[in-house]
Amino acid sequence: MIADLHTVPGFTFNGFSVGLKEDNQLDLAIIHAEKPCAAAAAFTRNLVVAEPVKVCKKQMEDGLIQTVVINSKNANACTGEVGMKAVYEEIKRTSVVFKVAKKDVFISSTGVIGRPFPITEVLNGITLAMDGLENTAESSHATAEAIMTTDTKPKGASLQFELNGKTIHFGGIAKGSGMIHPDMGTMLSFIISDLNIKAEVLKKALNKAVDRSFNMISIDGDTSTNDTVLVLANGDAKNDLIDSIEHPDYAKVEEQLTEICIKLGQSIVDDGEGITKMITFEVQGLPTEEECRKIIRTLSTSLLVKTAFFGKDPNWGRLFAAAGRAGVDFDPDKADLFMGDNDELCLLKSGQPKTLDENLAHQILAKRDVKVKFDFHQGEAKSIGWGSDLSYDYVKINAEYTT
Amino acid sequence: MIADLHTVPGFTFNGFSVGLKEDNQLDLAIIHAEKPCAAAAAFTRNLVVAEPVKVCKKQMEDGLIQTVVINSKNANACTGEVGMKAVYEEIKRTSVVFKVAKKDVFISSTGVIGRPFPITEVLNGITLAMDGLENTAESSHATAEAIMTTDTKPKGASLQFELNGKTIHFGGIAKGSGMIHPDMGTMLSFIISDLNIKAEVLKKALNKAVDRSFNMISIDGDTSTNDTVLVLANGDAKNDLIDSIEHPDYAKVEEQLTEICIKLGQSIVDDGEGITKMITFEVQGLPTEEECRKIIRTLSTSLLVKTAFFGKDPNWGRLFAAAGRAGVDFDPDKADLFMGDNDELCLLKSGQPKTLDENLAHQILAKRDVKVKFDFHQGEAKSIGWGSDLSYDYVKINAEYTT
Repeated sequence: MIADLHTVPGFTFNGFSVGLKEDNQLDLAIIHAEKPCAAAAAFTRNLVVAEPVKVCKKQMEDGLIQTVVINSKNANACTGEVGMKAVYEEIKRTSVVFKVAKKDVFISSTGVIGRPFPITEVLNGITLAMDGLENTAESSHATAEAIMTTDTKPKGASLQFELNGKTIHFGGIAKGSGMIHPDMGTMLSFIISDLNIKAEVLKKALNKAVDRSFNMISIDGDTSTNDTVLVLANGDAKNDLIDSIEHPDYAKVEEQLTEICIKLGQSIVDDGEGITKMITFEVQGLPTEEECRKIIRTLSTSLLVKTAFFGKDPNWGRLFAAAGRAGVDFDPDKADLFMGDNDELCLLKSGQPKTLDENLAHQILAKRDVKVKFDFHQGEAKSIGWGSDLSYDYVKINAEYTT
Repeated sequence: MIADLHTVPGFTFNGFSVGLKEDNQLDLAIIHAEKPCAAAAAFTRNLVVAEPVKVCKKQMEDGLIQTVVINSKNANACTGEVGMKAVYEEIKRTSVVFKVAKKDVFISSTGVIGRPFPITEVLNGITLAMDGLENTAESSHATAEAIMTTDTKPKGASLQFELNGKTIHFGGIAKGSGMIHPDMGTMLSFIISDLNIKAEVLKKALNKAVDRSFNMISIDGDTSTNDTVLVLANGDAKNDLIDSIEHPDYAKVEEQLTEICIKLGQSIVDDGEGITKMITFEVQGLPTEEECRKIIRTLSTSLLVKTAFFGKDPNWGRLFAAAGRAGVDFDPDKADLFMGDNDELCLLKSGQPKTLDENLAHQILAKRDVKVKFDFHQGEAKSIGWGSDLSYDYVKINAEYTT
C-alpha cells in the first residue's frame, strides 16, 4: 500500500475511474488542499511540450496552487488548439466543483500523444470526484495508481523532519518507467507538505533537489513532452516562515526535499521497463560536480554498459570507454574503477585492469542492486546517479507500446 | 566476394590466420603499397585510446604511409607500457620484413580490450605474410575478413571517376557493427587509391568525408578506443597533383571520397548487431547543417525510436519528442514529418498529427530500408544520416559478448 500522501495534514486526494483506461482501471487523480499552497514546479525541457504544460507554466506565475487534476492514458500533447481549449475547460470545471480560483488549479496529463483528448470523460470525472476526496491510506494509494501508464506498480515516498521543534511532513507520489532520463522523461511527481515557506524559496530548493535526483536517473535516455514535478506547501506545520535561502532553516529543507526526490526517483528506476538491475553510479575526483554528472549520464545511458549489466558481466572496458566519450577532460591513467557496496571489487587501478576476482564479481553482479564507482583522482567534486540495465523485456515493451 | 581493394593498382594485400581467433579464422590483415603513399587518418575522439592509436597519431605526422598491419580479436587497449612496446615491435618487424621505413608503417588493432596483447603470434604472422601479399579478388576478400570482430560479413566498397581524362580508383574495406556512433565506434576503415594528391589536402577531404559519412551513422551510440579511418593515395593515376583545396579538381575528390565513405558506413549499419531495419534520416529546414545533424544524432540514438522501428510502429510521437530534446531551437508548430522513399506518408503537418493511412504505413514499415524526413521550414540547411532499429538480438549479442 502506497500511503505516503496520507502522512501530510491539510490535503485530500483520491484516484477515480472515468473511462479512459480499459477494465475500469483508475485514470484520474485529484489532490486538493484546504487552502491555496505555496507551490513550485519543474517542467520538461523538451521543445515539444504538451498543452497542459504550456498552460500550467502560466498557472505557476503567482506561486499559488490549491487543486491538482491529473489524468493518465492520454497526454494531451500535439493536440493543438483543441487540446489547449480542453485544458482551460478542465481548469474551469475544477474551479466550479472545488470552489477554488481558476488561477490556483494545476492540470497534468500523461499517456499517448497526438490522440484527441477525451475531454467529456475528464470533465465528468472532475464533477464525480467532488465528494470522493479523503486523506486516507486507501485514497493515497488510489491517487498513485491513477497516474500510472506503463508502470507496474504505484510509487510513493514520505519523510518527516524537525525544524525548531515543529514536525514537517513531506509525502509524494510519482509515475514513469520508460523515457526516464536526466532531463526528466514521461515522469510525473507530486509532493505535498505542511511546510511554511515562500513559493520563490521553495522553487530554489526544488531546482536543487531535481538536479540531484530526477535529473540523475536514467532508463532509456529519452525525455517526454509532459514531465512535471510539483511541490505544494500549505504552511500548517507553523514553522518560522522560510522567506529566503539565507534563512537558517533553508539548508535543512533543501536537503530533505532532495531526499524525498531521490526516493521517488529511485522508485521510478526500480520499476523501469523490463529492468533486472538497479545501478548506482558514483563518480568522484574531478574538478566540478557538473563533470561528474556528465560522466554518470553517459554511463547510465550507454547501451553497451546497460547490456553488460543485463549479462552480469563486470565489463570495465565498456564503462571506461563510455567515460572516455562523455566530453569530460580527464587523464585515463589516473582512473580507478570499483564495483560493490563497499568498493570491494577493484576493476581498474590507475587506468590499468586488475586481475579479476571472478567469484567476487559473480557475487556482486548476482544482486539486483549494484554500485559502480569511478575515482579519477583529479579534483574534489563528486556526484551520484541511478540507472538500469537493458533487457529483452525493455525491447519487447517498447516495440509493442504505441505512443 | 568483397573484391574492392583489388580495383586499385600499385597495392598488394591479404588476410592471414595467425592463431588469435579460434578455428583458424583470419585475424591479421596487411595492406602494402609499392612506394610510400600520401596518407590521411581520422581517429576516435574517445579519451580512452588504444596503444596503436597513440603511436599512429605520431606515425601520421609526415603524411606518408606504405604498409598497414591490422589484427582483430585483441584491441591492444588499456594494456599500458607492455602494449605500447608491442606496437613498436610490430612496426620494427614490419619495417624489416617489407623493407619499408619504420615511420611509414601503420598499426591498427580491434577486439577485446584490457587483455595482454598476443605479440608473439602477431610478429610471427607479419614474417609469415612476407610472400603472401597479392592484388587479387581473393586477397581483397581475405583482407576484409581478417579485420572482422562481431561483424557477420566482410565489408567493402569501390568506385571510379575521371579527372581530366585520368581514371581515379578508390577501394576500401571496413569493419564494425556494435559501438557504432557519430564519433566513430569500434569502426575501422582502410581506403586505398591511385589518386595524386598532397597528404595535407587529402586530410582536409577526409575530414569532410568522415563528418558526412562515418560520423552520421549510429547503431548504439557508443564509441570505442580504437576507431580509425585511413586513406592511402599512391599517385599512380598521374592526375595533375592536387596541392590545395583551391585546385579545380579538389571538389570532385572530396565528393567522391565522401561517396565511398558513405557506402562503407552504410555497409556497417546494414550489418549492425541484430538489426532488422536500416533507417535513413533526412532533416532539412533549419538554419545550419550542424543543427540538422544534432537532430539526426538524437533520433538515431533514441531507444524509443529504435524499438518503435523494431515494432514496425510509425511512431511520430517518439520521433517528435526525440527531436525536441536534441538541444536545437525550433518551432514545433512548423514541423512536418514524413516516412517512405518519396515522403509519401505524411505523419505530422505543422506540428499536428495527420490521420494515419495504416495500409501505407504497414507497406513502408514492412521493408528493411525505411526513410524518415523532418522538414522544419525554418532555414535552408539539410543533412542526412543512417541508423538502425533495436532488436532482441542486439541485447542478446551484447549481453553475452565480453569486451
